[in-house]
Amino acid sequence: MKIAIAQINTKVGDLQGNASKIKKFIEKAAKLNADLVVFPELTLTGYPPKDLLNNKDFATANLNELEKIAHFAGKTACVIGHIDFNPSLKGKALFNSAALIHKGKILAKRHKSLLPTYNSFDEAGYFEPFIKNIPLEFKKQKISLTICEDIIQDGPFPRHQIYKNNPVSNLTKNRPDIIINISASSYSNKKNAERIKILTKLAKKTGSHIVYCNLVGGNDELIFDGNSLVLNPKGKIVSKATAFKEDLILCDLKKTEEIKTQEQISKEEESIQALTLGTKDFFHKQGFKKAVLGMSGGIDSALVGALAVRALGKENVHAVMMPSKYTSKQSTNDAKELCKNLGITSQVISINAIHKAYSDNIFTEKKEGVVDTAEQNIQARIRGNILMALANKNNWFVLATGNKSESAVGYCTLYGDSAGALAPIGDILKTDVYKIAEYLNKDGILIPQSIIDKAPSAELKPNQKDQDDLPSYELLDKIITAYIEEGITPQNIVNAGIGDKKTVFSIIKKIESNEFKRKQFPITFKMSKKSLGCSRNMPIVKDMSFSLKTK
Amino acid sequence: MKIAIAQINTKVGDLQGNASKIKKFIEKAAKLNADLVVFPELTLTGYPPKDLLNNKDFATANLNELEKIAHFAGKTACVIGHIDFNPSLKGKALFNSAALIHKGKILAKRHKSLLPTYNSFDEAGYFEPFIKNIPLEFKKQKISLTICEDIIQDGPFPRHQIYKNNPVSNLTKNRPDIIINISASSYSNKKNAERIKILTKLAKKTGSHIVYCNLVGGNDELIFDGNSLVLNPKGKIVSKATAFKEDLILCDLKKTEEIKTQEQISKEEESIQALTLGTKDFFHKQGFKKAVLGMSGGIDSALVGALAVRALGKENVHAVMMPSKYTSKQSTNDAKELCKNLGITSQVISINAIHKAYSDNIFTEKKEGVVDTAEQNIQARIRGNILMALANKNNWFVLATGNKSESAVGYCTLYGDSAGALAPIGDILKTDVYKIAEYLNKDGILIPQSIIDKAPSAELKPNQKDQDDLPSYELLDKIITAYIEEGITPQNIVNAGIGDKKTVFSIIKKIESNEFKRKQFPITFKMSKKSLGCSRNMPIVKDMSFSLKTK
Repeated sequence: MKIAIAQINTKVGDLQGNASKIKKFIEKAAKLNADLVVFPELTLTGYPPKDLLNNKDFATANLNELEKIAHFAGKTACVIGHIDFNPSLKGKALFNSAALIHKGKILAKRHKSLLPTYNSFDEAGYFEPFIKNIPLEFKKQKISLTICEDIIQDGPFPRHQIYKNNPVSNLTKNRPDIIINISASSYSNKKNAERIKILTKLAKKTGSHIVYCNLVGGNDELIFDGNSLVLNPKGKIVSKATAFKEDLILCDLKKTEEIKTQEQISKEEESIQALTLGTKDFFHKQGFKKAVLGMSGGIDSALVGALAVRALGKENVHAVMMPSKYTSKQSTNDAKELCKNLGITSQVISINAIHKAYSDNIFTEKKEGVVDTAEQNIQARIRGNILMALANKNNWFVLATGNKSESAVGYCTLYGDSAGALAPIGDILKTDVYKIAEYLNKDGILIPQSIIDKAPSAELKPNQKDQDDLPSYELLDKIITAYIEEGITPQNIVNAGIGDKKTVFSIIKKIESNEFKRKQFPITFKMSKKSLGCSRNMPIVKDMSFSLKTK
Repeated sequence: MKIAIAQINTKVGDLQGNASKIKKFIEKAAKLNADLVVFPELTLTGYPPKDLLNNKDFATANLNELEKIAHFAGKTACVIGHIDFNPSLKGKALFNSAALIHKGKILAKRHKSLLPTYNSFDEAGYFEPFIKNIPLEFKKQKISLTICEDIIQDGPFPRHQIYKNNPVSNLTKNRPDIIINISASSYSNKKNAERIKILTKLAKKTGSHIVYCNLVGGNDELIFDGNSLVLNPKGKIVSKATAFKEDLILCDLKKTEEIKTQEQISKEEESIQALTLGTKDFFHKQGFKKAVLGMSGGIDSALVGALAVRALGKENVHAVMMPSKYTSKQSTNDAKELCKNLGITSQVISINAIHKAYSDNIFTEKKEGVVDTAEQNIQARIRGNILMALANKNNWFVLATGNKSESAVGYCTLYGDSAGALAPIGDILKTDVYKIAEYLNKDGILIPQSIIDKAPSAELKPNQKDQDDLPSYELLDKIITAYIEEGITPQNIVNAGIGDKKTVFSIIKKIESNEFKRKQFPITFKMSKKSLGCSRNMPIVKDMSFSLKTK
């Protein structure tokens, strides 16, 4: 059997647009003489549809589109992800489903059994799980049609299996010829390697061909990386789609040679591709073209600027330098050089006059020589206002330039440097910001070396350096990773020798007490196993002394 | 049997603080010779604990506190809500549990079966459901120990039962003498009446006494109203705790006379009590005392100011008037009179000089006489900055003054009037803002009549009125209620004659396209069936034409 994988980029809610794209790819697959073409999870609705699922028109309209596709499809069969009504009067109203369509007819439907409800996923809130997924027959092949999570039960969970049911044991019993899995598995670093492990194990266990179609594209916080695959029953990869791009691949299942998967791409390269796709889709799926950002001469804005150019084109990125009396000459020069290297337009708006107007009107009892938090914040907020004003005037989106290390400990100003429609690098640790910047420079200087070399500073008071208030970023990032991403308790972080108790506890107290700021942050792409945005849901008003008691 | 209900106000995460309070109330109940005292759902952890449940220390520490309470408790037994480990290696790691403690021992534990995962609830993400809840015996009484949602299966769901299991059918079969239900059922308008209906039906169906203990207090977006109850087997209320306050009530189950429940309090009175409690707990549970808000002379800031005085005391509320060249004399006078009536301190900071500084520096190509959105927004953002600066200087919280009608259609400025730690009336429709303000005036003028009477205006350009850009608030609020709270589709809102198609569709388009603003709003109390904050989870990047097509 010749199976095609249509790794397409869908838009949430856009039933008609997604349906048009599906038809286009069915035609392409038909031209390649595919027997069957497989689309990603919830192809019609886009992923994640969230509360659109509560709209009573939505499921009906999506089933209408599915019918139209059935009428359209000819001898090349297709597997389409969609939502379906639960016919029972008990349980949630909807299923997360996959339909097999052939020659004008919907031959079969299967529904998802394991509904991820952790991290950024919330499927148990909308869908009823469907337990008994029996194989179907198509062209004399026994096929199991599965959806995303349903095949990862045997994955590497920390404590135990998080689901009571294990659809994989059924697959092992049934030993179908082909297991099709339609998926919306979002990107995070190392996730692709994990997926390959799971799929390899499954193929070996069941003796089945595995056809794995994953979504591609950015939707709000989530970036889907594609990386669709076909594995033979020995668990070898025999076909592979590109990462971070739409793709159509065709695989004759008779073919058994293992393909050379391209050498492991670096974490930096992968991050750049993910962020570029996420940013592009965030803008273009909303009909926006142009971004504006504050260019301080620091490393964060430099990286965001460089990524924006990749995502939107240099003609669609505008930088604003907003120096104050605390801005060094070096910073201004670095920012200018960077804009030149990037080929983007820029302008300079000094914030001194505005800053003075605030000071004269509100800080009337000012002590000479002291620049406290309030006075530092006002400078960041003036800059936020200027960017928002330019964006409002010109119909641009503001890019916030904060990174994960700052966001974690609240080393940033709400409504100031955190202002924007999107915070592209909000889930990138500062140490990784440097690595990505250096990687971007591998074919010649894009980001001036002095931006990379100088000590990081917010430049909100004289001679300020980040490390006056924070431990080294190497240490800070280790603590953040251990606590947020690995879920290690504060005391165990100390026990593991990552940092001394005073430092570790004070950083984690900062992390927890700054939840109120992050609550009001812009969309931040999930790039790690656990971002501070969509994949963490911490109370704001809370007491943490059970975990942070110092004696 | 004499049963006490300890309707206490817990703090999320504060295991030791909550345990101390539990002990205090056990002592009080023992003094009243209660046989048993019942505490609300998740007494030890507070509700909702959210991602604290992922902290590996948390369950262990909560079980330690439970043991200590067991050692402490004497002849008065108690029912405590807590989290427990799921001993199975399959399924989520935790249960949402209730323990019966007597004379130093934990006699029994029961676990929640129905895990709400809709609206603001997310329990399926953390807990494993436990199906077989068998009754226990205590002092020769057959008692079913249930948790919140487990008794509401027969409630008024729109389409069908949202759960597959129905614990109520077991209760009906078992016919226990007493059904104890420990609950964390959050406030929304009319919810208490719904609860009484459910409990009455349950009592009649099972022939059991119902002891219903509900949580009281504010935790982030949720306000718990208490209103705990005891019903006799005929479904009559025989004992009742206060609303919106901690309470301890004692009920001898032999007693059968129905009590007169106080006459239905008005929606306005209930809203005021809820908002006052929510605001107070938001501040005090975080160790904050003082609030600052911008006082425009409009109705929204007037109401927020009045509520803040009730919640925090007049000595803890500070108002800032920030007039511009577009501010009417009337507004300034009204604001001053209001501050006098409220007895709060205030100051005036004109934004003209700061506004001019922005205009000179960024709006260099300004057309005379035109005040576009960017120029309007900058004024609101200057005010946001001033408030944040004062809050930063003095360790205050800023109260944002926006209402639900504005927030729904985005008639507000991000980082401007939406800036703050808390938006108390963010789930109150504009028409209700007026009603509550008038209700506050019932014993004499608190909010000057001219604030109530004048046409609402943002005063960001000459002669601006809200109704230049929006339909009447009466119509707008009807559309918002139908779409957001009732979940009626746009076309059906038109069909119901609420508004013409053009108006309805344009309002709903505004609602959906302003999700990006609400994503960055401060904590907003859930006051209605569906708030725009915690109980709605809409994609930002999306297409809605399936629902809003105009032909």
